[in-house]
Amino acid sequence: MNKDYIKPDHWSIIEEGFDADNVKASESIFSIGNGAMGQRANFEEQYSGSTFQGSYIAGVYYPDKTRVGWWKNGYPEYFAKVLNAPNWIGINVFINNEPLDLFKCKSVKHFRRELNMQEGWYKRSFEATLQNNAIVKVEIFRFLSLDLDEVGAIKYDITPISDSLEIRFHPYLDCNILNEDTNWEDEFWETLNVNHQNNQAFIVSQTVKTHFHVCTAMQTQLSLNGKVIKQDKRIDSFSNYIEFQYESNTKKGETLTLTKFGGYTVSLNHNKEDLIKTSKGVLNKVAKIGFEGLLENQKETWSKIWKKADITIEGDIKAQQAIRFNIFQLNQTYLGKDARLNIGPKGFTGEKYGGSTYWDTEAYCIPFYMATKDQKVARNLLEYRYNHLEKAIENAERLGFKNGAALYPMVTMNGEECHNEWEITFEEIHRNGAIAFAIFNYCRFTGDYSYIPEKGLEVLIAIARFWCQRATYSIEKEKYVILGVTGPNEYENNVNNNWYTNYIAQWCIDYAIENIGRIKAEYDSDYIRIMNKAKLSNSEIENWKEVSQNMFFPYSEAHKIYLQQDGFLDKELVTVANLDKSQRPINQKWSWDRILRSPYIKQADVLQGFYFFEDQFTKEELERHFDFYEPFTVHESSLSPCVHSVQAAKLGRMEQAYTFYLRTSRLDLDDYNNEVDEGLHITSMAGTWMSIVEGFGGMRVKDNRLSFNPQIPKQWKAYSFKINFRNQILKVNVCQNETNFELEGNKDLDILVNNKKITITPNSLVTV
Amino acid sequence: MNKDYIKPDHWSIIEEGFDADNVKASESIFSIGNGAMGQRANFEEQYSGSTFQGSYIAGVYYPDKTRVGWWKNGYPEYFAKVLNAPNWIGINVFINNEPLDLFKCKSVKHFRRELNMQEGWYKRSFEATLQNNAIVKVEIFRFLSLDLDEVGAIKYDITPISDSLEIRFHPYLDCNILNEDTNWEDEFWETLNVNHQNNQAFIVSQTVKTHFHVCTAMQTQLSLNGKVIKQDKRIDSFSNYIEFQYESNTKKGETLTLTKFGGYTVSLNHNKEDLIKTSKGVLNKVAKIGFEGLLENQKETWSKIWKKADITIEGDIKAQQAIRFNIFQLNQTYLGKDARLNIGPKGFTGEKYGGSTYWDTEAYCIPFYMATKDQKVARNLLEYRYNHLEKAIENAERLGFKNGAALYPMVTMNGEECHNEWEITFEEIHRNGAIAFAIFNYCRFTGDYSYIPEKGLEVLIAIARFWCQRATYSIEKEKYVILGVTGPNEYENNVNNNWYTNYIAQWCIDYAIENIGRIKAEYDSDYIRIMNKAKLSNSEIENWKEVSQNMFFPYSEAHKIYLQQDGFLDKELVTVANLDKSQRPINQKWSWDRILRSPYIKQADVLQGFYFFEDQFTKEELERHFDFYEPFTVHESSLSPCVHSVQAAKLGRMEQAYTFYLRTSRLDLDDYNNEVDEGLHITSMAGTWMSIVEGFGGMRVKDNRLSFNPQIPKQWKAYSFKINFRNQILKVNVCQNETNFELEGNKDLDILVNNKKITITPNSLVTV
Repeated sequence: MNKDYIKPDHWSIIEEGFDADNVKASESIFSIGNGAMGQRANFEEQYSGSTFQGSYIAGVYYPDKTRVGWWKNGYPEYFAKVLNAPNWIGINVFINNEPLDLFKCKSVKHFRRELNMQEGWYKRSFEATLQNNAIVKVEIFRFLSLDLDEVGAIKYDITPISDSLEIRFHPYLDCNILNEDTNWEDEFWETLNVNHQNNQAFIVSQTVKTHFHVCTAMQTQLSLNGKVIKQDKRIDSFSNYIEFQYESNTKKGETLTLTKFGGYTVSLNHNKEDLIKTSKGVLNKVAKIGFEGLLENQKETWSKIWKKADITIEGDIKAQQAIRFNIFQLNQTYLGKDARLNIGPKGFTGEKYGGSTYWDTEAYCIPFYMATKDQKVARNLLEYRYNHLEKAIENAERLGFKNGAALYPMVTMNGEECHNEWEITFEEIHRNGAIAFAIFNYCRFTGDYSYIPEKGLEVLIAIARFWCQRATYSIEKEKYVILGVTGPNEYENNVNNNWYTNYIAQWCIDYAIENIGRIKAEYDSDYIRIMNKAKLSNSEIENWKEVSQNMFFPYSEAHKIYLQQDGFLDKELVTVANLDKSQRPINQKWSWDRILRSPYIKQADVLQGFYFFEDQFTKEELERHFDFYEPFTVHESSLSPCVHSVQAAKLGRMEQAYTFYLRTSRLDLDDYNNEVDEGLHITSMAGTWMSIVEGFGGMRVKDNRLSFNPQIPKQWKAYSFKINFRNQILKVNVCQNETNFELEGNKDLDILVNNKKITITPNSLVTV
Repeated sequence: MNKDYIKPDHWSIIEEGFDADNVKASESIFSIGNGAMGQRANFEEQYSGSTFQGSYIAGVYYPDKTRVGWWKNGYPEYFAKVLNAPNWIGINVFINNEPLDLFKCKSVKHFRRELNMQEGWYKRSFEATLQNNAIVKVEIFRFLSLDLDEVGAIKYDITPISDSLEIRFHPYLDCNILNEDTNWEDEFWETLNVNHQNNQAFIVSQTVKTHFHVCTAMQTQLSLNGKVIKQDKRIDSFSNYIEFQYESNTKKGETLTLTKFGGYTVSLNHNKEDLIKTSKGVLNKVAKIGFEGLLENQKETWSKIWKKADITIEGDIKAQQAIRFNIFQLNQTYLGKDARLNIGPKGFTGEKYGGSTYWDTEAYCIPFYMATKDQKVARNLLEYRYNHLEKAIENAERLGFKNGAALYPMVTMNGEECHNEWEITFEEIHRNGAIAFAIFNYCRFTGDYSYIPEKGLEVLIAIARFWCQRATYSIEKEKYVILGVTGPNEYENNVNNNWYTNYIAQWCIDYAIENIGRIKAEYDSDYIRIMNKAKLSNSEIENWKEVSQNMFFPYSEAHKIYLQQDGFLDKELVTVANLDKSQRPINQKWSWDRILRSPYIKQADVLQGFYFFEDQFTKEELERHFDFYEPFTVHESSLSPCVHSVQAAKLGRMEQAYTFYLRTSRLDLDDYNNEVDEGLHITSMAGTWMSIVEGFGGMRVKDNRLSFNPQIPKQWKAYSFKINFRNQILKVNVCQNETNFELEGNKDLDILVNNKKITITPNSLVTV
């Protein structure tokens, strides 16, 4: 099933040869983004083959009317949906009056795409023979500026090969845009203004209902052999479309270039009324810097990112390429500048779930961003949830909770729930736990406690309240139980006492109580402010303790394991190894009821708890639970293998850890699930990073100290990674027989290596 | 909330006074049907107020594309949906050129509707003052013939009151019909032919996709003061519409009458090519019989129905009216002539679920039809499922079952599943049990065992196979368990070991084995034929026994009750009496997760099992279970109170039994749930019958004998019912201090009254 056409390379993603069947997959893989906007690698020129056009603006969404077969009380009426935004990259090209369209050419030779991850640009080149026998060499260079994140740049070179040719460039802006995933075929955009001045054009449009105003803009310039030429242009302008038309007779061997700057300014960041002015300012600024200048900045910015985030792998070029691809895509998706944004599972590479926030952020992405960026970035991700607290409280109220209890949505864009399967929306409540855990994780890693008195405690209180109300007392068990939930393993629904959920619920309550105590003792004014706001009484806290101390955990004495849920042992416990291969993946082969009553686990569930709360269990306990549950795990979520990889490594099972690692690292590049055309699996990419750093490298933070237990797959010569720990960058290089540590910083750093304390002095190599 | 405008009457449903707010409700309540077709009580003339137009043909459906929020593997792509059929009742009326439209009249006086249940007709009359000040007295008489079930008759009388008036009648056929509940706004009908000859008109249309051909036909005649007048007419014909136009100046006090016969002939019953010819034949036949003749037949046929089915109640006219309404509607919906048809929950009175078949038929309706009609009728209902056996096997195969296991659909029109909530479609599998139970129930009541060797055993084998495959062995429990089901209480989903499901599964297996044995012994050739077809081996039967004998039943030693499902006692067991009234009905007030984890029961679940298998439990056991479960039951299904009423009566709690009875008997007439405008609750009407006959009357069949334990609510003077038992009709009349039995038949009948044997001789009164 999986595709395998990407050429191995240390720093680039490369496709060679034109295959129309790969176009949609490559549009995903070669996507570019800058945290504020992004787009699939759609061709600039017309393409009549199969394509999935997509350009997205961070934070700009549309509330599409919910589509559902059978309505359940409590479903949201509207869902925020990522919006396919107006197209600014388009450049139609005509050669001797024939449209250049790779799908219709007589031949396309030397087709090549390159996504240069080191420098952050995308290039496409080919030699095409048109139906009119004109032959052209074409090279298109494109990037989205990380510094000026409202702008991107395209350089479109055409060189006649066959003869002198009449070349026409029609760069355009197009606001006549639909979403593939619209529920009701609605149009989401309304054009307000189409405008142009000199070599700039602007379309202001607004989203229906949400009224985000967006100015889509472009500025164009024609050059011959690298020299700007003055050329008259025609302008064609319609109600939601504008194009410039340049025409030039170009001699064989000469290169005609259209340079196009374009992008968006958005009412999220500017006054609605000033958008055209703002866009003009951006374009003028970019014009001054020029294409080459902008590209230099781009390279420099990416170089800074890699300096903190790069992972090298020696002896396996495909692994090297894959891990950089994952780090690169995470950075394209989210740079942490804006607490209103988050990390969508498909980033800027597709519509489905694209742009929405899941618990993936807290459970999988935050460790990556903490370790590779300034702490402000992870803090912004926490603040995103703080800013949605009121809506999470409203959401819980709609479901019958009260007194400030919060249930964060399963899927969201703006704090409101964007999902409507009852078993997920209403019952996959463990997500609340990951949101609290991320606060703990952030403090543990960064040592920055200030977030909790400032903002975090309010979230912790609201979440603790939720769990205390959601747990109910079972007279039968003489314990508090949590009935009717879906755990991280979505292949069980509406189960009772999912161990992971009960455990994280208890932990959330205890952690809230612990922090209330600390803030009472150490942050007096914050304490008073928060207590006044939350109206939290001592008797309520006493009730929390009662619930937490009497929480029920299903346990099997026979197996000496915690049960995934009350009924787990009643299932037919046939391991995955004994399941006929023809039956897999079960989510494509089996009806839902059959999946639900099977023992098969989609992704780490009990083991997710062992991953989060590792220190609270012995290695023997981990081993027992791993050996019990992993054999039933089908890993049909892209978020599954990474946790298992980390745990296998911890158990010293490097072969198994490496196998798990392979399942995620090239998931999209090799299109294992035959769905990359819909977009990339952005959030699971953080899991790949986790497998190397926490798994193979054994990185942890213990008592404010970095700790490592380095191991290395036998297939690799060496690998290295970097950890940005409290404003110093530690580089860890693991070889088959030694590990080297290097510190970029200004003070000694004590770390643990295999539980032994070692002091690393800046700028000197320490070998263990 | 509930409406209360229907006038009490022994034999008629009467509305007096025009209220536009009641029009849609009355359209449901005054619906008429004849088993083959039916229609809401829409006005014949134009009506611009709020109305829900509906005319339906039994067995004519459309596979509408499934609408679903999140697709699950195994969902059907198309659902059969009841079709709103072409309109044949329409008669537009113009008075001095102004359309008669009750919504626009200056005044409507003496508005009255009557549905005469004794004779099977519907009459509407009023005096209207139009905007042009014309005043007319109008009376419209309508019925659908039970004998000639392809035709209905309308007599539309207009008498000028104010002055002589120019009256125009435009009787029409209209095929431009939409369904309110279309998922994708599709048109379901395509017109093939519009035709007329003399005073007859025809439109042949076909349903899209299913290609049912239907000829909608009419024949019209004008009379003055009861005498046919020859009158030229204009004809207006369009692509899917045809109307005749009659015009007459009518003097004050004279009565102009349009008589219209109309209806459908359908390719289900005739050659496609002959439909117009067939319709002509039907119209000619009816014209010969004439309106009055047809009406006489109608009265006679209904009189025969009532002779076997009537229930009288003395001392409570509203109760009397209600029970007759229920019996009347059941007979309008299904007369048992055609094994391809079944009893839809809304009959011919609305679209939603209308026409589709649920387990309601087997669990609730069959007892009524068995006791009030010839045994062929109930047998046809069994054959309906026999005819769908292949599709039920295919359905089970899609869900992973094999070797001829059958899972009947939850909702169906043609044997295919028409529902797509996974918790219902895939998990509410107990429906299979009711289908087997109906076979047992039929044999028990009628004594006709022949159905089992002829057809029933194949169904029983396929159902037993399903249960044996669906039950899985729990090593933990050392028993067979049935995981992941929804019981009759749909307020719990995906539970393990729903007692009712496990119990009926075991019973189905045992009953199949028992019948295989009997047929082997007594019906040699049938045995060979069936075993050859089913390929059933002795070892498979041994495996069935293993499953059945080791079925797990959740039980509480503390409470001495069977548990509704494994986790029931973990719930917060707050009774309905202690639930704040503002929270009810919970299905409108609570989100689904909250309902699921609550102890609240939608309809009899464990008690449904005690109802079906009454003889297998002691009265003390029934009492204990009733007292445990009923207090948690919210009865939010219209099928709930009847079972509880029967059981309360059995426990001698007549006050409670009567209270339950009241909750169903006038559900639609008084519109308790404020939804009667969508249609009537046809199948639950059989539950009302059950409450009286099985509940108050205590009717059972034991060892081929009728048995009674007559009781009477203290609010009533007396009540009587009739039982058609093995071709003799026993009338039971229960007074406050005695019960009288009368037998219409030709041989003595031994019955049990309060467990004492009594012999009833034909045509002589026996008082107990």
